[in-house]
Amino acid sequence: MSHPLDAILRPRSVAVVGASREKNSISYDLLHNLLEYGFQGPVFPVNPRTPFVHSLKCYPSVEDIPDPVELAILVVPRQHVLAHAEACARKGVKGLVVITAGFKEVGGEGEDLERRLREITQRAGMRMVGPNCMGVINTDPAFRLQGSFSATTEPVSGPIAFSSQSGALGEAILALMTQLGLGLSMFVSLGNKADVSGNDLLEYWEADPRTKVILMYLESFGNPRRFQEICRRVTQTKPILAMKSGRTAAGARAAASHTGSLAGTDLAVESMLAQCGVIRCEAIEEMFLYAAALATQPPPKGNRVAVVTNSGGPGILAVDACVQLGLQVAPLSPATQARMRPALPPEASTANPVDMIASARGEHYEACLRAVVQDPDIDAVITIFTSLEIIDSMAVAEGILNGIAGTDKPVLVCFMGKVQTKPAIARMKQAGLPVYTFPEEAAQTMAALYRRRLWLDRPTGHMVGYDDLDRAAIDAVFTAARAEGRTTLTLVEATRVIQAAGIPVAPWAAAQSWDEAATVAAELGFPVALKLSSAVHTHKSDVGGVRLNLRDADAVRGAAVAMLTNAREQDPAATLVVQRMVGGGTEVIFGASVDPKFGPLLMFGLGGIFVEILKDVAFRVAPITDLDAEEMLSDIKAAPILTGARGYPAVDRAVLQEVLLRLNHLLAEYPEIAELDLNPFFAAPTREASLAADARVALKPR
Amino acid sequence: MSHPLDAILRPRSVAVVGASREKNSISYDLLHNLLEYGFQGPVFPVNPRTPFVHSLKCYPSVEDIPDPVELAILVVPRQHVLAHAEACARKGVKGLVVITAGFKEVGGEGEDLERRLREITQRAGMRMVGPNCMGVINTDPAFRLQGSFSATTEPVSGPIAFSSQSGALGEAILALMTQLGLGLSMFVSLGNKADVSGNDLLEYWEADPRTKVILMYLESFGNPRRFQEICRRVTQTKPILAMKSGRTAAGARAAASHTGSLAGTDLAVESMLAQCGVIRCEAIEEMFLYAAALATQPPPKGNRVAVVTNSGGPGILAVDACVQLGLQVAPLSPATQARMRPALPPEASTANPVDMIASARGEHYEACLRAVVQDPDIDAVITIFTSLEIIDSMAVAEGILNGIAGTDKPVLVCFMGKVQTKPAIARMKQAGLPVYTFPEEAAQTMAALYRRRLWLDRPTGHMVGYDDLDRAAIDAVFTAARAEGRTTLTLVEATRVIQAAGIPVAPWAAAQSWDEAATVAAELGFPVALKLSSAVHTHKSDVGGVRLNLRDADAVRGAAVAMLTNAREQDPAATLVVQRMVGGGTEVIFGASVDPKFGPLLMFGLGGIFVEILKDVAFRVAPITDLDAEEMLSDIKAAPILTGARGYPAVDRAVLQEVLLRLNHLLAEYPEIAELDLNPFFAAPTREASLAADARVALKPR
Repeated sequence: MSHPLDAILRPRSVAVVGASREKNSISYDLLHNLLEYGFQGPVFPVNPRTPFVHSLKCYPSVEDIPDPVELAILVVPRQHVLAHAEACARKGVKGLVVITAGFKEVGGEGEDLERRLREITQRAGMRMVGPNCMGVINTDPAFRLQGSFSATTEPVSGPIAFSSQSGALGEAILALMTQLGLGLSMFVSLGNKADVSGNDLLEYWEADPRTKVILMYLESFGNPRRFQEICRRVTQTKPILAMKSGRTAAGARAAASHTGSLAGTDLAVESMLAQCGVIRCEAIEEMFLYAAALATQPPPKGNRVAVVTNSGGPGILAVDACVQLGLQVAPLSPATQARMRPALPPEASTANPVDMIASARGEHYEACLRAVVQDPDIDAVITIFTSLEIIDSMAVAEGILNGIAGTDKPVLVCFMGKVQTKPAIARMKQAGLPVYTFPEEAAQTMAALYRRRLWLDRPTGHMVGYDDLDRAAIDAVFTAARAEGRTTLTLVEATRVIQAAGIPVAPWAAAQSWDEAATVAAELGFPVALKLSSAVHTHKSDVGGVRLNLRDADAVRGAAVAMLTNAREQDPAATLVVQRMVGGGTEVIFGASVDPKFGPLLMFGLGGIFVEILKDVAFRVAPITDLDAEEMLSDIKAAPILTGARGYPAVDRAVLQEVLLRLNHLLAEYPEIAELDLNPFFAAPTREASLAADARVALKPR
Repeated sequence: MSHPLDAILRPRSVAVVGASREKNSISYDLLHNLLEYGFQGPVFPVNPRTPFVHSLKCYPSVEDIPDPVELAILVVPRQHVLAHAEACARKGVKGLVVITAGFKEVGGEGEDLERRLREITQRAGMRMVGPNCMGVINTDPAFRLQGSFSATTEPVSGPIAFSSQSGALGEAILALMTQLGLGLSMFVSLGNKADVSGNDLLEYWEADPRTKVILMYLESFGNPRRFQEICRRVTQTKPILAMKSGRTAAGARAAASHTGSLAGTDLAVESMLAQCGVIRCEAIEEMFLYAAALATQPPPKGNRVAVVTNSGGPGILAVDACVQLGLQVAPLSPATQARMRPALPPEASTANPVDMIASARGEHYEACLRAVVQDPDIDAVITIFTSLEIIDSMAVAEGILNGIAGTDKPVLVCFMGKVQTKPAIARMKQAGLPVYTFPEEAAQTMAALYRRRLWLDRPTGHMVGYDDLDRAAIDAVFTAARAEGRTTLTLVEATRVIQAAGIPVAPWAAAQSWDEAATVAAELGFPVALKLSSAVHTHKSDVGGVRLNLRDADAVRGAAVAMLTNAREQDPAATLVVQRMVGGGTEVIFGASVDPKFGPLLMFGLGGIFVEILKDVAFRVAPITDLDAEEMLSDIKAAPILTGARGYPAVDRAVLQEVLLRLNHLLAEYPEIAELDLNPFFAAPTREASLAADARVALKPR
């Protein structure tokens, strides 16, 4: 049974609609690429104004082609796209690639055209890549489909699948891959993603036996939730590397809560990609460094790296970079060192890095690498060769290959120096060994391989639900606020919501008047805090709406008079919250902010300067597992404070984890929540003393 | 008048001592390189065992050469080096390059040989590069000296001077420079630096008109103090880029103070390089990215970058990287946009990035760049071209060159895509325009150019001395400690030293007994702190040696009894310090730690968790200027706390700056101080309330 995308990426016949005889046109290049690369099936040019193109008979319409057509590539002017798409539908074409631009990306009429184009394809059950794209490639010898106008006419076949949301970047990356000798399995220029999305391709490539690594250049997410689910699954078997642009543009979003202001869109992207195991690359080059290794080398079992070199300086650079990236470069076992010793001159060093010195030839590499890869305390190897005129670099390449033969540990090679090493480098690449130009690159790549190991070994964690959510209370609050057309909740309302979600709150009571405040304060027990509850004065500290440590009823009444009198000038509905003073714990902050695209983001950090000045917080895209929650507690730099560093009490982590999971649950159940802060929450050594002391909740506008 | 190093790098004649006829030998390669590259003067091979080499008459000894010899390159076996060096001395040779290895780097006998070799050269007034090096290169057409055995036989001439402490890395970098078309002025492989040092070369290249940028690969510093002085001066006219290996190896040094434990050797290197304006590179590639631009482009006047591109994706990547690196990508002025508009299709965007879309040809680049470089609100330009088959890339290159002709703003080019753009890239490089493969690289390089601007614009600052240092008090303390064979000072002693340096200390008094403690406490006024003063118990908190907030004489006496009784078990000499409690300020820490190589390092940070958990501290290598001191206060992440963020009081910065300068002065006057901490120092809003509340000083062992 074939996959719907097979019609586009594994077609048995292709029509090029709009095939032109004019050189230097996109359609000429595209047809030329298809023929030059040797598509394994018939190619039918369609063009009503010419009888033949490229020595091929040309048909006036796709419907005039006597044979079945599986894929049609449209390169016609925009105004003709819909008519040809309809002809394709009538002809029974299964897949479309629409190169033509001028659709959604130009707005207005273009958007309308794109909508109608999608309707046509959907009605006919055709899948479509584009419009506004540069085409598709499948290097599989059974198809050899070069269905793009890329200048890379002869893409190298290999294990890397690549989808690009930018045509220009796709083109540049294809060129670079060819230059670097990195092999492509399939390439799709996504264009406007009117139908086929990056998500569709991830699933398609998950099942493609030729694809070992997936690369993506992303500018936006169509369905981030589905993206996450797919990536979480796919990354268990195939690494996904992504470059996402727009890192810095965002973050300027106005937000009322701390969480909201810290949660720029890129933070959401960053968290989301990390949570679903996608390796985010900062730069194009980084993507290639990693892809070359991920496609050929297993992730190491641990982080213990051996460096084997013929040159001290580059060896030190590799060690430096490894250590800085969290890898270990520990001394080799005496047994391993003893095995290498006979092969080496006395000046050589058999510690780690193994410095075989400049006289090392192929046989030295072979002997040392054989010893090192067999050391049970070594998980991965970086070997460096600085080429010297007097050393046969091809023999070194062979020595390396022989030395590591049969190992299940990852090996990365760094070949430095003169161009004459090119055949030797080609030899190793062809044998499936990634070769780097700089020791730092090899180290950086090894760290990426190790991160993949950590991802594969990471337990999945469990989703946690709670059946004690007090829906009636929450619904009452939301209904009341909505009835008044409010999205901001008062402190009384916010505290009720938090409590209804099962989150412990310091004992409190609402008070409508100063007298009531004094009364309930006495009932709660002194000292108390007095706080303004108002949907108007949302920054209550700024209007004198917070008084702490009030020690008797008179103090409460006095403070309440001042607070209410002042606040009611602008908010006649303002009331008060009296709350028992809590303390002795460590101030932390919990928050949530709903990203319009990604949904809720959860935040955790220490309060006060930690969140406000040091921005030392951890984010996760919801929904989170119990494991995510636990990791959030450890992710912040100040994490040692929670475990009792520097005189701070060791706090009850279980309750903090539970608060995160309860917020997670609340947000899942009430998608109308837009923002939420618990600041401060007093994290204490015991569960009983761990209490929220303030809450802020905002709803989405209706 | 010639410079002594001219004999090595600008010789009028060269002898190759140990010239061999055996191919695949180092000496053969070296002689071959000299001849192939076309040295502009006579070359005399020396070898007693052969009458000619490479068609050149061969002399048994350098003394047999009838003509004067300025430079001799020694490639003889180690046991013959001294004899030949002596022959060179007798011959009147002015410069030696000793390729031969087996000297200091192998220890033992080798060290001895190197010492004797240095004696010979010093006695004869010869300068020497090496031993254990790969040679020297000067591409100046007047000399054309390829005096190395590098496989890069034909180095490209250009503006970059490069010294390498690792032969292997030098070789690799020479190969890469040739590959990248980066031109070299001179190259020196430093080897063991028995005579000529990196510092010597910095000064030599400072005066070399062909050298515009200096690159260094460093493994160690011979004389860091002189290195700093030279770099501070040289970087005013020529950028220096350095790669220093050994980043992570250090830092494990045992140290008693916070400052000592935080000041790993690499922190010293990091601070030192930054303080003298050297651009430290993390990776070899980074060095080249920057060198290409620094050699050809002026540093921008400000940080406002315009991006001009024919492709959206790469444009976004450039903008992202710029913003992340602290550059601004602000909208272009309406006037500039209006100037570009007529040249562009309606779909193009004239904001910033200027996206001319894929149809842009040479004339579009020319028109848009001309408008952009003339915009007074733009300081620098990055222009990107993603090559398309249908666009003439050479015309784009010419358009770029025409568009930016005559500008004094830096312009970086990024050419992405197919290999056929190579001639266009070569054209731009030849015209002095650096061309990058990735937009991120161009952005990263622009940020480096801007950092150079900041360095050039940075005021020098002033050295500050103090004439009120109480030398008598300090000498008395040090003498007493030395008399007892101690390097650790007691709290009483340390506090006296600090006070004698003019640093304000919270009112205190020493007490020998519990009764005296109670008496002096009453005199100081309650509450007081009671602290153990002991040269044995250096971590006084660990032995109950700190009691705070004692409110009356009885409390002091009680605490003193416990403290002294406990402490005197191990330290019968233990006494007490009674100190008035201070507070209300922000706890900060000052420190100093003397690096064996770099001398004193000064540290500043906030106290408690900031230093202990967050490691949020600033370091400078002493001596520091008033400007350095002020910058240290701002360098920490928590700096806003000092200016009054989040309810903290704004502190008196002048007193903090003065404390740093007084410590700086103290360390300069007393080089026997090894470590020093003021922790805590209470930084307060007023000068009067800003006081040290604890001190720790250790001396260097004698």
